[in-house]
Amino acid sequence: MQLLKDRIQKEGRVLPGNIIKVDGFLNHRVDIRLMEEIAKEFELYFNTRDITMVLTAEASGIALAAICAQRYNVPMVFAKKAKSDNIEGGLYQSEIYSYTYKKKVTQILSKEWLTAGDRVLIIDDFMANGEAVRGLCDLVSQAGAALMGVGIAIEKGFQGGGDRLRNMGVNYHALAVIESAEPGHIVFRDDM
Amino acid sequence: MQLLKDRIQKEGRVLPGNIIKVDGFLNHRVDIRLMEEIAKEFELYFNTRDITMVLTAEASGIALAAICAQRYNVPMVFAKKAKSDNIEGGLYQSEIYSYTYKKKVTQILSKEWLTAGDRVLIIDDFMANGEAVRGLCDLVSQAGAALMGVGIAIEKGFQGGGDRLRNMGVNYHALAVIESAEPGHIVFRDDM
Repeated sequence: MQLLKDRIQKEGRVLPGNIIKVDGFLNHRVDIRLMEEIAKEFELYFNTRDITMVLTAEASGIALAAICAQRYNVPMVFAKKAKSDNIEGGLYQSEIYSYTYKKKVTQILSKEWLTAGDRVLIIDDFMANGEAVRGLCDLVSQAGAALMGVGIAIEKGFQGGGDRLRNMGVNYHALAVIESAEPGHIVFRDDM
Repeated sequence: MQLLKDRIQKEGRVLPGNIIKVDGFLNHRVDIRLMEEIAKEFELYFNTRDITMVLTAEASGIALAAICAQRYNVPMVFAKKAKSDNIEGGLYQSEIYSYTYKKKVTQILSKEWLTAGDRVLIIDDFMANGEAVRGLCDLVSQAGAALMGVGIAIEKGFQGGGDRLRNMGVNYHALAVIESAEPGHIVFRDDM
């Protein structure tokens, strides 16, 4: 998606440790108009009229997922981290490793809001190692629901999370795949 | 806001410890159409044409804040919890106590995305003790930005957070103020 790649080239910054900072438009300050364009772009890859919900993981995916759900006219559900006291029993749970927080995190999702009849489109803003999405796929599987696709705005292609999903045959699409990132020099994988 | 109160009465549940569960439409599974109605309703109370950004706190406020920012045609910024490694220095920080997680949490916000020239509308889905919003107000103050208002969808009136803001003279509005909550019996404060 050229618009997104242009924004990454113009405003993204590469920090030591291959961290790609896009927090001016994607995951800290959010450009809602860009989210609308991303939501439109996903329609090229996913049959959004055939889904019953958009699923994401807290926190940074929520804004994009909300705008997608709005466009596709379905509810948005987000898996929560860890245990808060306002979710009762009846939870799906998946264990993932958060590289951001450098610890294991448990994703939880109430069984009330994801059931075997659901047709789920997973949306997230960013994929690196893919742990968050792996956990979401696991939640969908636990529910016996249908995984209709996984849509990611920006993938760090060199960290393998996206390729693992591609190799599993998941209907996976990322709109900008970063192949290498050095300060001042970001290279995208060829469009698929 | 009658539509919101009706949803709370119909779908909300009261758990032991005065926990009000509205996670079927507000903060786990999110009804985006309802968020759109809430965003419209806030226009009765706030001059949304005079703001430069919507500010919220991760995680559950993000969906509502995104839909509000979309309607008011401004970016949405969310304060993050704790320290992740993809935010550099140059941060505003505020310490709050999270009753949900029963521990101190540090809210952080990059100085890049909130500056003295900003006119900020704080939006959150839920207010109980008001710690999250108190922290957000503190971030706005640290930036020297103008706090144009604080809009909350559901307030637990009996926990005092909303009244503290009202007494401070903040332009504060909650669309449904719950005065008391017992299992099967939710009472709202009279409309203001």
